[in-house]
Amino acid sequence: MNYRIISKLLSVIVTTLAVAFLICLGMGQTFDTSVREDGVLDEWLICSAVAVALALICMLLGRGAGNKLLRKEALAVIGLGWILASVIGALPYYLILEEASVADSIFETASGLTTTGASVFSNLESIPTSLLFWRCLSQWIGGLGVVVFFVALLSSLGAGAKILFSNESSGHSTDIDSGRVQHGVLQIMYVYLGLSALCAVVFHLCGMNWFDALCHMFATVSTGGFSTYNSSVGAFQSPTIEWMVTLFMALGGTSFFVMLRMVKCDFRHVWRNTEFIAYLIIMGTFSILITLILLGEGVVGDFNEALRVSTFQAVSLMTSTGFSTADFQMWPNVVHTLLMMAMIVGGCSGSTGGGTKVVRVVVALKVARQQIERAFRTRVVRPMHMNGRILDKDDQENVINYIVLLAIVCLLSLPVLALLQHELSFEGCFSAMLACLFNVGPGFNEVGPTLNYSYFSEAAKIFLALLMIMGRLELYAVLVLFTPSLWKRFS
Amino acid sequence: MNYRIISKLLSVIVTTLAVAFLICLGMGQTFDTSVREDGVLDEWLICSAVAVALALICMLLGRGAGNKLLRKEALAVIGLGWILASVIGALPYYLILEEASVADSIFETASGLTTTGASVFSNLESIPTSLLFWRCLSQWIGGLGVVVFFVALLSSLGAGAKILFSNESSGHSTDIDSGRVQHGVLQIMYVYLGLSALCAVVFHLCGMNWFDALCHMFATVSTGGFSTYNSSVGAFQSPTIEWMVTLFMALGGTSFFVMLRMVKCDFRHVWRNTEFIAYLIIMGTFSILITLILLGEGVVGDFNEALRVSTFQAVSLMTSTGFSTADFQMWPNVVHTLLMMAMIVGGCSGSTGGGTKVVRVVVALKVARQQIERAFRTRVVRPMHMNGRILDKDDQENVINYIVLLAIVCLLSLPVLALLQHELSFEGCFSAMLACLFNVGPGFNEVGPTLNYSYFSEAAKIFLALLMIMGRLELYAVLVLFTPSLWKRFS
Ligand SMILES: [K+]
Ligand SMILES: [K+]
Repeated sequence: MNYRIISKLLSVIVTTLAVAFLICLGMGQTFDTSVREDGVLDEWLICSAVAVALALICMLLGRGAGNKLLRKEALAVIGLGWILASVIGALPYYLILEEASVADSIFETASGLTTTGASVFSNLESIPTSLLFWRCLSQWIGGLGVVVFFVALLSSLGAGAKILFSNESSGHSTDIDSGRVQHGVLQIMYVYLGLSALCAVVFHLCGMNWFDALCHMFATVSTGGFSTYNSSVGAFQSPTIEWMVTLFMALGGTSFFVMLRMVKCDFRHVWRNTEFIAYLIIMGTFSILITLILLGEGVVGDFNEALRVSTFQAVSLMTSTGFSTADFQMWPNVVHTLLMMAMIVGGCSGSTGGGTKVVRVVVALKVARQQIERAFRTRVVRPMHMNGRILDKDDQENVINYIVLLAIVCLLSLPVLALLQHELSFEGCFSAMLACLFNVGPGFNEVGPTLNYSYFSEAAKIFLALLMIMGRLELYAVLVLFTPSLWKRFS
Repeated sequence: MNYRIISKLLSVIVTTLAVAFLICLGMGQTFDTSVREDGVLDEWLICSAVAVALALICMLLGRGAGNKLLRKEALAVIGLGWILASVIGALPYYLILEEASVADSIFETASGLTTTGASVFSNLESIPTSLLFWRCLSQWIGGLGVVVFFVALLSSLGAGAKILFSNESSGHSTDIDSGRVQHGVLQIMYVYLGLSALCAVVFHLCGMNWFDALCHMFATVSTGGFSTYNSSVGAFQSPTIEWMVTLFMALGGTSFFVMLRMVKCDFRHVWRNTEFIAYLIIMGTFSILITLILLGEGVVGDFNEALRVSTFQAVSLMTSTGFSTADFQMWPNVVHTLLMMAMIVGGCSGSTGGGTKVVRVVVALKVARQQIERAFRTRVVRPMHMNGRILDKDDQENVINYIVLLAIVCLLSLPVLALLQHELSFEGCFSAMLACLFNVGPGFNEVGPTLNYSYFSEAAKIFLALLMIMGRLELYAVLVLFTPSLWKRFS
């Protein structure tokens, strides 16, 4: 393990936070020049100073580190980076809000940086503007980080990413060279920035003021889900805004590779992308089913309204955004189950969405079908098609093993969370685990859309923050940190 | 597909039912010579006559069938056999009980034959003795069928069974010849019969009358869980009986191969059996955790009582028996979550227990560990040990694919059940799905230990009955029936 290069890379992350803190300070002054904002100037300066100091220490420790990065070091940087950022990013909450404990602050920051959007604060409208801005901005930074991380690193891990890349090349799924990866990262960043700009302008045109438009853009494009209002997007009372948010949430859950194709007007590839098509079909099915149930049970009388609120909620939870326009906890029980299934499926790989990821669900379904046929035809081997190409055996095994690992993490997290928070109902416990591990944010019952995680024990908050980071980094980058052999110097 | 041989084999199953019906008739007269029993004589004769007639038809259709059985036909016989038996076995309920609908009767029979033990009848104590006897006997027949099926057929499918067999041979995991399978089936049947006899005698010595001892033996050895009393094993109010039932439930969930080793006093192999050791450790952990929680939360004041009720419930749900001595629905929420985890783990492979099976959980954990290490050491390959031997790659893949298939079945069943039974809470829906698919019986909330499935819709009952059969036959034997290519004549 080369600790120098790890320090060096961590210093980049800490510097980013220092810059973000100064932006928040400035934004607070721009959008809200009240006494309240002037009162938190010192706190922001302290935060920035601490971050700069830490960045300098990391830089010093990382002096003379080469540029050669091993895979294990890359993984460690990502895992440690997100954890470190969640601790440093917690400073503003801790210093500015009196009611925020250390665990609260870390929970809220991890929630932002992992684009989970689960909150411990009940009254958002009493929080200083600059801190609200940091809360939303952290999601956008996290979303960008995830997309970059996914492109730059998961591509070489083969965890489903090869499928995306291989679409571009003609048959050789192993030809992922660093030059192409770097080129890919830049292109994807442009798409992210472009989508963000478009989203903010559209939100402003739909009637949000610039501050709200920016903050909600941060939360939508990154599928984070932090709003600046207690009643989330419902606060705007505007069908137009709701439909636009639905559209941009759906885009946030779409693979940025597919969006790159769209920008290039290469629609032939878009329609050949198995994951994207499956994503649209699953999202449509959930939306329609919920619309029919809400109409059938008389929860909503009007078809248009039923379609709007159902689509909004299905898209919001499936893309793991977690915005709400209605208290879906009050909807019939069957809708809870459907929404949890949508949360489990999740968004597309290579997007900011969470969940299992549509591509893995599709591969799992295909493997299951093959396995059933093999029960009576033991020798049958059929090539598995994905995006118009054949998915090789290794990729297939990686996807299946990832799913089993995810299932194990879910099933071990459940009793741990239950033990840390005794009185939690099963629905509350299950949906809190899903909401955090799958980066959705709100769940059901005790963690429903109108409630939050404020009354959780300190230990439960820290545990859930760890789950968010694990889920966001697709498990490995955090799990390897617990592997003793990672830390051996020469291996 | 050779339909003749399928008919021939189905006739064996139907004949078994006809004999069982006549035994029930006799037992009713032996244990209860009241007018009530005389009133149902005709019904039993009709049932037997129908079964005999059907058996004859099957025999006629199967005339001239050879002895050569293809794997696909074997699978089809098992799947169709369990479904057919659930329909024919439903006749007595339908004819004798006025309140029983067709769906009720099929649900109850499937529940018995799959050793699930989920019931639609609220007042058992009003049911004629002979029918109560059939209800319990059906579990014992089902349990025997599962053990035989597992030994005879899954062994050649490689779904984890090779691991058990390979322990006997010295390194060649492929040498499963039909002679050894036949020999194995007989030996396992002797163990099943021996365990049954021992269990019935012990229950009688502990204070049950012979009828109760027999019926509870049927339910315990097969991990079925149908009692003859509304308050299940709690009705006896006897700590001795509770501990003895706990012991025999634990044995019911133990691999019959391991028990065969025990009978042969070959304890060296028993302690080297990874699955058995893991089974004991997991069962012990759940029992102790629940004991501590019940004491800590003041639900039970006395340590001995807490240990007894906790161990009973943990063993009951983990082995998928489903007996209860207390209303565990009233226990703290954290216990619900723990008990559901125990249900998911399940018993040992090669036992009558349900669930995922301990061996698969162990393999999944080992694969997960390997997968984490592979995230930074892509080329590392470590041999996986199981029962002191190396588990080959194919077996490993089969286990992992089975788990993914099981996860898919669970996650697709949830919304289907929710749609069939709108008002079911998430905890009720999730635990009903688990309780049926994993052959446990009782669940939580709406399907808690003091409640039953009587108020479910007809469609939901049939769906759950199908889940029970799927779960009992480890999915494949039922799922292949829905594969069109199975039914092609030449393939
Ligand atoms: K989110
Ligand atoms: K059972």
